[in-house]
Amino acid sequence: MNAANPPEGASPSVNALTAPLLNRLLAEAHSLRLGVSRLPSGATLIDAGIQHAGGLEAGRLIAEICMGGLGHVSLQAGGPFSHWPWQLAVHSRNPVLACLGSQYAGWSLAHEKFFALGSGPARALAGREALFKELDYHDSADAACLVLESDKAPPPEVVAKVARDTGVAADKLTFILTPTRSLAGTVQIVARVLEVAMHKLHALHFPLADVVDGMASAPVPPPSPDFLTGMGRTNDAILFGGHAHLFVNGSDADAQALAQALPSSASRDYGRPFAEVFKAVNMDFYQIDPMLFSPAAVTVTAMQSGNSYFAGRLDATLLDQSFGYSAR
Amino acid sequence: MNAANPPEGASPSVNALTAPLLNRLLAEAHSLRLGVSRLPSGATLIDAGIQHAGGLEAGRLIAEICMGGLGHVSLQAGGPFSHWPWQLAVHSRNPVLACLGSQYAGWSLAHEKFFALGSGPARALAGREALFKELDYHDSADAACLVLESDKAPPPEVVAKVARDTGVAADKLTFILTPTRSLAGTVQIVARVLEVAMHKLHALHFPLADVVDGMASAPVPPPSPDFLTGMGRTNDAILFGGHAHLFVNGSDADAQALAQALPSSASRDYGRPFAEVFKAVNMDFYQIDPMLFSPAAVTVTAMQSGNSYFAGRLDATLLDQSFGYSAR
Amino acid sequence: MNAANPPEGASPSVNALTAPLLNRLLAEAHSLRLGVSRLPSGATLIDAGIQHAGGLEAGRLIAEICMGGLGHVSLQAGGPFSHWPWQLAVHSRNPVLACLGSQYAGWSLAHEKFFALGSGPARALAGREALFKELDYHDSADAACLVLESDKAPPPEVVAKVARDTGVAADKLTFILTPTRSLAGTVQIVARVLEVAMHKLHALHFPLADVVDGMASAPVPPPSPDFLTGMGRTNDAILFGGHAHLFVNGSDADAQALAQALPSSASRDYGRPFAEVFKAVNMDFYQIDPMLFSPAAVTVTAMQSGNSYFAGRLDATLLDQSFGYSAR
Repeated sequence: MNAANPPEGASPSVNALTAPLLNRLLAEAHSLRLGVSRLPSGATLIDAGIQHAGGLEAGRLIAEICMGGLGHVSLQAGGPFSHWPWQLAVHSRNPVLACLGSQYAGWSLAHEKFFALGSGPARALAGREALFKELDYHDSADAACLVLESDKAPPPEVVAKVARDTGVAADKLTFILTPTRSLAGTVQIVARVLEVAMHKLHALHFPLADVVDGMASAPVPPPSPDFLTGMGRTNDAILFGGHAHLFVNGSDADAQALAQALPSSASRDYGRPFAEVFKAVNMDFYQIDPMLFSPAAVTVTAMQSGNSYFAGRLDATLLDQSFGYSAR
Repeated sequence: MNAANPPEGASPSVNALTAPLLNRLLAEAHSLRLGVSRLPSGATLIDAGIQHAGGLEAGRLIAEICMGGLGHVSLQAGGPFSHWPWQLAVHSRNPVLACLGSQYAGWSLAHEKFFALGSGPARALAGREALFKELDYHDSADAACLVLESDKAPPPEVVAKVARDTGVAADKLTFILTPTRSLAGTVQIVARVLEVAMHKLHALHFPLADVVDGMASAPVPPPSPDFLTGMGRTNDAILFGGHAHLFVNGSDADAQALAQALPSSASRDYGRPFAEVFKAVNMDFYQIDPMLFSPAAVTVTAMQSGNSYFAGRLDATLLDQSFGYSAR
Repeated sequence: MNAANPPEGASPSVNALTAPLLNRLLAEAHSLRLGVSRLPSGATLIDAGIQHAGGLEAGRLIAEICMGGLGHVSLQAGGPFSHWPWQLAVHSRNPVLACLGSQYAGWSLAHEKFFALGSGPARALAGREALFKELDYHDSADAACLVLESDKAPPPEVVAKVARDTGVAADKLTFILTPTRSLAGTVQIVARVLEVAMHKLHALHFPLADVVDGMASAPVPPPSPDFLTGMGRTNDAILFGGHAHLFVNGSDADAQALAQALPSSASRDYGRPFAEVFKAVNMDFYQIDPMLFSPAAVTVTAMQSGNSYFAGRLDATLLDQSFGYSAR
């Protein structure tokens, strides 16, 4: 028995599956234009777009790390948006575990002025979020990796907290920093298009055990140095340009209800670029309808009948508005 | 000299080329949600969608195994069908050998109530089909892998027959089971879009030695638990949605004649979903025009002139009908 | 410290990064249908389409070698051209170094009747071109690889010159021959779509240090045995079908000016298939406007504002004319 093939029925270890991907990222750090340094605590810090350029390919590889070694992310030309013909295509060997157990940015880390949401496999060691009880998943590993959508290194207190909560020594921790304004950040955020669908599915109380598989795509937005604009674009790539296809068990009625409720357009806050929505609530995230966060178009196939249900629509006009096509 | 670089002029060994891919599939079986067990004979059984979930990525990897290590299969977002925007794109380092020498489901295996068509590199060890004489290809290896589009394990008599015909000890045989109703089965069947073109080309008596290269794509259909519907959809993905581009030697007249005859629409049975065609002949496969089985659209480029010939057409309406778009 | 992670600020070694890709090409030469032989000087010769068939996948791998191990080239189905639905999608970890430091066919090699333009990482050892002074880049390595768009092996004098200029012993040199008329040649030439954009950007005096990242795509043309037609098609794939997206530092005005000047349609010689343009100047390359060589459509994103600038257009009609769609 080894880590790759644990006993029948056990879930795979997202941390074990991620380790070779992280080692590859470190080995190729130089050609990927990533900065690698050590914090005083001994933790490894990977700069993917602050002092170092990083780039599209770095973002793609970080997205696969963020999916716990269970995701496949590719950069593809073509697609439905003539002004933005590059897409990220994402599928996973295990959407529940990859997206909710690893990729979801669910670990809130704060100390004084530092704040970041942590995503990636280290979350499954800490198990600090209620979500992990529902997943009935707790990983164990002696090294861990966390992706932070941040342009600042975590302070010693945050490193200590992550070490404590994951049970991993600080010098075996790796933090990958991907600011929203960087290309790597933009790519790894938009590569959450399948995760966003899984998260809303969960919020809609669809049983996670009934999700068999899924794939999703979204256009690559231009980054922006303005945090609000950049964050808006990465959201809008999914809200106006994302397309998810989920394969589920259960009744046709449940599959159809899921399809109807899932798209972003089912939300009361749908209809204008995310940055505007956010400004309209004075940047109070909790005033935004959580049902807004979802791909624009969805297909749900009920595996037990073979029927498929469609809802939502791609919106090239709103996408152009968000990404700045009219800026010519 | 090693297996990878045999003497000038010799064909590559599809079994030797497949071995590392099969080893990878076994090593990653857990994360791919595949079941791995041993039959009493010692043969390895991989369950890719019966008791185990398998999935899209498992199907993609099995498709590359089925092509004898000479094929490249990718899952791509976008493409010509707005309701079914996911496609399989397939190309091969050697279309004749990959598609006809390995991937074609040409080995009929039956015992009492068990029946399955075997595909994959083990066929080239057995050489039971007339096709191998024409290919003038006979592989040798001490391990072998066969893909069965089946939801039942092969009975001991079938395992014994495969061992006997391939000359491989039963405990060195691997059977991969991909039911039509599973996602892995659906993907690995539709990934035959290039093979289907090659097989019809062969049935049209186009010289195999004149095929230089090829690439083909087809949309990913939703699986169906109903065998007839599921089989119909995998066929229709190719018949209504497949697009093949072949590069051939020979005269322009031969390339043009090939292009005209090759598309599915050149068949008298073209025009309605495959499940209907099949029902109309009381499920007697041999009453269906064999010329039906082909991609919807073809391009044939004559390498000796540089001219290209086009025929057939994609049909989004028939595809929607088959895949169940109107089922909303 | 190792070759993969040199000191902070140093550029990666395109020759070190290419070595594993070249080793893989050699190990898989047989399945890729490549010929491998030794010249009397001990140099290795890879035939990718003269006596040996080569093919699409060989071309894809050679393109990644040509980009110095910093490029990612994939063959994708779909895209904007319904008659030519296969595209090459290219992105790079470091567009300046990959495209100008390695992939650009800038090393003119001639002896008596032999003439070829050399591309690939060996150029960065020789540093014979003025371009390398501007790049301030000089690589060192004890083995080297050069891609020649030629159907003849380099004569001993050319091998000796390459050995002398690169400082690499002849028996550590590898020459990859990809004739324009071959599939591998066609693929590796069209995979220059990002390089062509970078080269024109440089000719427009845009500062190379301000290029952050880029991605580009172009359709795969049918090869032609007629040199002029074949060369015309590989050019037209880019001139009429190429689409590049560049991410740059600097002012909005500079990004906008770059976008306006960059597309092929900004040239006085734009408007008819390249073979016609070439014939009209009696095949005197130096009479053609160098500003013609560029992708059809470009997007330039100014990273410091987040604004994007668009110019040019894809032209399916001219592409059909060049590739021979009307030849049916």
